[in-house]
Order: sequence, then C-alpha cells, then structure tokens
Amino acid sequence: MAKGKVLLVLYAGGEAAREEPRLLGASENELGIRKLVEDAGYELVTTTDKDPEPTSTVDKELTDTEIIITTPFYPAYVTASRIARAPKLKACITAGVGSDHVDLDAANKRKIAVLEVTGSNVQSVAEHAMMTILVFIRNFLPSHQMALDGGWDIARCAQHEYDLEGKVVATVGAGRIGYRILERLVPFNPKKLLYYDYQPLPQQAVDKLNQASKLYNDVDKIVERVESLEDMVAQADIVTINCPLHAGTKGLFDKKLISKMKKTAYLVNTARGAICVAEDVAEAVNNGTIAGYGGDVWNVQPAPKDHPWRKMHNSWNGGNAMTPHISGTSLDAQKRYADGVKQILTAYFTGKFDYRPQDVIVIDGHYATKAYGQKK
Amino acid sequence: MAKGKVLLVLYAGGEAAREEPRLLGASENELGIRKLVEDAGYELVTTTDKDPEPTSTVDKELTDTEIIITTPFYPAYVTASRIARAPKLKACITAGVGSDHVDLDAANKRKIAVLEVTGSNVQSVAEHAMMTILVFIRNFLPSHQMALDGGWDIARCAQHEYDLEGKVVATVGAGRIGYRILERLVPFNPKKLLYYDYQPLPQQAVDKLNQASKLYNDVDKIVERVESLEDMVAQADIVTINCPLHAGTKGLFDKKLISKMKKTAYLVNTARGAICVAEDVAEAVNNGTIAGYGGDVWNVQPAPKDHPWRKMHNSWNGGNAMTPHISGTSLDAQKRYADGVKQILTAYFTGKFDYRPQDVIVIDGHYATKAYGQKK
Repeated sequence: MAKGKVLLVLYAGGEAAREEPRLLGASENELGIRKLVEDAGYELVTTTDKDPEPTSTVDKELTDTEIIITTPFYPAYVTASRIARAPKLKACITAGVGSDHVDLDAANKRKIAVLEVTGSNVQSVAEHAMMTILVFIRNFLPSHQMALDGGWDIARCAQHEYDLEGKVVATVGAGRIGYRILERLVPFNPKKLLYYDYQPLPQQAVDKLNQASKLYNDVDKIVERVESLEDMVAQADIVTINCPLHAGTKGLFDKKLISKMKKTAYLVNTARGAICVAEDVAEAVNNGTIAGYGGDVWNVQPAPKDHPWRKMHNSWNGGNAMTPHISGTSLDAQKRYADGVKQILTAYFTGKFDYRPQDVIVIDGHYATKAYGQKK
Repeated sequence: MAKGKVLLVLYAGGEAAREEPRLLGASENELGIRKLVEDAGYELVTTTDKDPEPTSTVDKELTDTEIIITTPFYPAYVTASRIARAPKLKACITAGVGSDHVDLDAANKRKIAVLEVTGSNVQSVAEHAMMTILVFIRNFLPSHQMALDGGWDIARCAQHEYDLEGKVVATVGAGRIGYRILERLVPFNPKKLLYYDYQPLPQQAVDKLNQASKLYNDVDKIVERVESLEDMVAQADIVTINCPLHAGTKGLFDKKLISKMKKTAYLVNTARGAICVAEDVAEAVNNGTIAGYGGDVWNVQPAPKDHPWRKMHNSWNGGNAMTPHISGTSLDAQKRYADGVKQILTAYFTGKFDYRPQDVIVIDGHYATKAYGQKK
C-alpha cells in the first residue's frame, strides 16, 4: 500500500503532448515525476478535471491527498472548503510561479506548506511582457492584419505607430519579473523607467540599471521609484503589472485608476488577471479611455468563451493583445519548473524538507515571503 | 518664375493624415517642407501617382524636376530610363534610410547626388525586428488568435513556444540597424550573437556588447563574426537581415541558402524584400523548411494583393508576421526624417552642399559609402 497520494492537476496536452515530449506541463507527460513519486512509495493520480467544486475529480481525490501539484496556467483552485475536505493535505506545490490559487490563510491554519518554483519562468514572463509592449507601441496587430488582407495603407498603420524609444514605461511591482522587464527596456533608450513597489529596489539593482543606461544611452538615473500609484500611471506611455495577486492588489486596476492613465497609453498585465477589474478594462479599451490592454492572465482560467477581454478592441481595431495563460509555460520554462518540482518533492520525500528558501510561500502556519503578506 | 522644381512622392494619408498632423510622411502633410522650398524660390509638386512607368504623374513631372524626394515605404523608383527622361535632375533625396529604389549607377553617370537621412529611423527598424523575433519565438500570433476565438488549449500554444533566452541569433549585416538589434538582444541572455558582414565591427562596438553581456548575464565574448553565411544560418535559431539591397545581396536568401537553416528557425527581414526570393521564402514556410518569416519589406511596394507573403503560413497556422513597410515610419521616425530632409534641402538651396557625410550615398559620380559599393 502506498505511503500517500500525490494529486497532479495539469492541462490536457492531447495530440500536442504526443507530438512533443518536452510538453512536460501537460497531463500526459506528468512533469516527468511518475518514477520519482512511485520510487518514494507514493501513488500518483493525474487529472485534468478540476471544475466545478465540489463534484470534480480533484474534489473526489483530495479527500486522501497528501500533496497537490498544479500550475498557474490551468490551476486547481485550493479553496478553504476544499482544504476542509482534505484532512491529509500537507503540501501544495505550484509548478511555476504564483500561488494565489491557494487560499493561503486557510493553508496556514492547517499548517499546510505552499511551495512554488521561484524564478523558473521569470525570464519567460518578462519576454512576453516586452513582446506585448512592442506589439502595442508599434501598432503591430492592425498592420499585420492589413498585410494578410491585401492592403497597403501606410498612413493608416503609422497613425498609431510609435517608437518605444523616448517613452515612459512604468511597472507595478519590481520583483523578479518587473525588474527583468526594466533590464530589457534599457537598451531601447526609454525616457524614464518608473516603478511602484512596497519596498525600494536594492541599491545594487538600481545601480545596475543606471550602469546599463549609461553604457547604452549615456543617460544616468534612468529608474525612479514613485510613491503614488495614481501619479505613476498618469505619467506613463506603458504601464506593466508585475505584482502578486493578494488582498491588496485584487481589483487594483479599476475604472478609477484606469481613468488616470493617458488616452494613448497601453496596459500590459502578465501577472494575474484578477488584479484588474475585467469589465472596467474592456470598457476602457472599447471606449478609448486607454489605447489597449494585453497580456496572458485572466481572472478565471480557462477564461469563458464570452470573457470581455476576448473581443474588446479600440477604435482602429487594435488594442487587444491577449493570449491564453502561456507566458510562463514555454518549452524552456516547462523543463525548469518540472526540475524544480522534482527538487521540492525530493526534499519532502527524504524528510529533510530542505527547500530552497525562495520557493517557500507559507510554511508551519506563517507567511515566509513578504510579497504575499503585503497589505494594501 | 521658379528657379526649379522639387518633386515630392509620398503615400496618401487620407483621413489618417487629416486626423494626425504628425503624419508628416503622408502626401497631405508634405514633410512640412512647402514653405522651405517656396522660400528658396523653388516650385513644390507633390504626388502619390508613381506607377506605372512611363505614364504616371511622376514620369510627367520628372521631365523638368531638379530634386526628387521619396520614401522607402512607397518609393518612386528612379530607374535608368526615368533618369534619361529627367535632364534637369540633380539630386534624389530619400526621406528615410535605404536608396536602392534609385539606380545608383545611372545616377553616377549623370553625377546626380543621392542622399538619405542616415540614422533617422534605425532605432525604429531595430524595434520592429526585435518585436518580430519575440512574436515568433513565443508563438504569439496563433495564441492571440486562440484568445480571440474563445479557445484555451495551452498545450497547443506551448508546443511551439520558446524563450528567446538561450537561443542563437544571427544578423546578416551589423551596421546601424543590425548592431542596434544586437544591443537590444543582450539583456535577453542569448546563447550567442553571430554576425556576417563585409567588415568586422569596430573593436569598441564589440567591447560594448561584451561589457553589456557581462553586466547583464555575467557572460563574456557574446558576439562572434562568422566568415561563411551558410555556416552562420545553419547555427541560428533566428536569422535577421540587416544589410542594404545591392547587386551582391539581391536574391541572397534563395531556396539553397534557406535550406541550410534549422527547421525550427525563423527568418526576420526588415531590410529590403528583394534580398529574399519571394517564392522560395513562401514555399519554405508553407512546406516546413523553416518555421516562419516576418518583417515589413516587400520586393515591390505596394505589394500586390496576391503576393505570396500575404497568405503563407506554417503547419500550425503561424510563421507569418508580415506588415506593410512601416517599421521606419513611426510618428517618431517621421519627425526625424522630415527634419533630415529639411537639413539636406537647406544645404542644397544655400549652395553650400554641406551635407552630413553619412547622408551621402552617391555624389559627383562615385559611391560615397562602402555599404552600397560592396560586391558579392
């Protein structure tokens, strides 16, 4: 008899997973952990059936699950009520970064550990944000559509086409991802890089950005911390969201905050969908309050077919650069987070619990990281 | 009576130009040069009617034109036969960068000066190339389409999604644009940056890239010159074309050279369309020889409605990131090249001919720049 059960909840890979073994994050390929789990004497149950609570396979299996593993791209939501029905649950592991799908307070009450693979896809997400920024500022999507459709109206494309050079870019959150975006922005010679965060960047990190800015553009003091979020978004040509989702950031970008942005500005969110009020964002894009919104995160995932972000667009049929939640699940990222999950499982199965400190979100009944503990 | 005629050939702006006065490159806004030209005692004739030779307005006006000004986005082709029918022609000015629409040998025979606004949009084009690289490597377009269409098949998106980090990127040409692309690539932590050019980068330019690479990624010697173009394209995950069009580069990327590329590689061309053989590129994308082709330049402009690059795509309906020729004509770039044209005209009208040396392509019957003089 198995020592315990590991429940693995992943998106279905189907034909893609059969064609591409590097799709480790698909249910068919099980992060490559089956042997590791079984060698440790545990049972591995893998499912894609996570909704709705309380009738899904996840709900049935949870009753005797010791470890649940899921991804941010297709998360099994570990709610307080599910935790109440999982008496043996001891650890929740996120294959990726961002554990807001777990009710962390409920986990703390039961001393359930919540762990993630910190850093496993920060570069992937930063790249997606950089891509989305360029796609917007250069008016790519309407111009690409014109190429497909047989047109050649340069003025129509150029009317909304700018250089990233000389623009003000602002990030909400300057952690691992936000900082990497700032790093990648420097060679584009921005006018100013702004950030809003509960703590200032370490001086060394600021120095590095300024050193790069001097090297590339002969400009010092490129980055500036802004105390007021409203002031920051009002100055920016592009605002990018790179903070965790928690009580203090849920619904942060609502009609009121968005109305402070420039009409020509773009909002890029690769953090978590629920940081924005979905209807307020769609309305702002549709009515011209801002020029556009893009990213890959949605307030519910999978996003419903009629989610307002699927069809929103600005007056020139641009302003929408959404994708499903894919930024952190490139084939390169999948290898990194699968490796990280194996490392966490090994630490658990050996009884050493020697996790990498940065991977621990909550443990022994308390928050191990300030990022999630931050209050508004 | 006017001292002479200046013929200005620009794309039609229509409603866009009426809405946006910064669309200086549209025929309605005439680069803002009318007053300058008329104050100098010259007549300014502006037209959009450039094709076909020999019946267009350009052909009619050319017979007594002294200066012709056009853009690479919607070029008036200054062929040998048109030059033969323009006895008074003394200068061709390109509002932008790239003067391959002028028959330079024919211009030299008549000692017609060919001038362009060097550097006026190099950052714009480098940004477009960076955007296209990210759009491809992250499999953006099929994923965006899925978001619009109501889908949520993460595996299908991720199957062809990679990070730019750790990839080999190669540029054909490391001049003003190619070098800026290399600069912007460094913070993405590539495996290697390769370039092919008729001359090596100045040591100072190499040092700068390596210094940035050490600062960002703790990696030295990131950039390498490759002697054989075939060897270079065979190693690269992304090949980007950044050389001028001339006899030595016309049709350079044909079926044979493309066949040396990796099947998973992307080709990005924001230089000139005719550097690639259009049918060979489309066939390579359609049949899976390479993963995709993108950029904004076409071998004839405007591109015909049935140009093979409009509809080509790979097996997962991606691999096509074309736009009309817009990369160098952002609103920011339009201001820069309009200012540059004014500077060139002033140098001409005052009789000082004190052009910026870097703006002179051919003058007094000879090539002023090695880039265009280079032979295969």
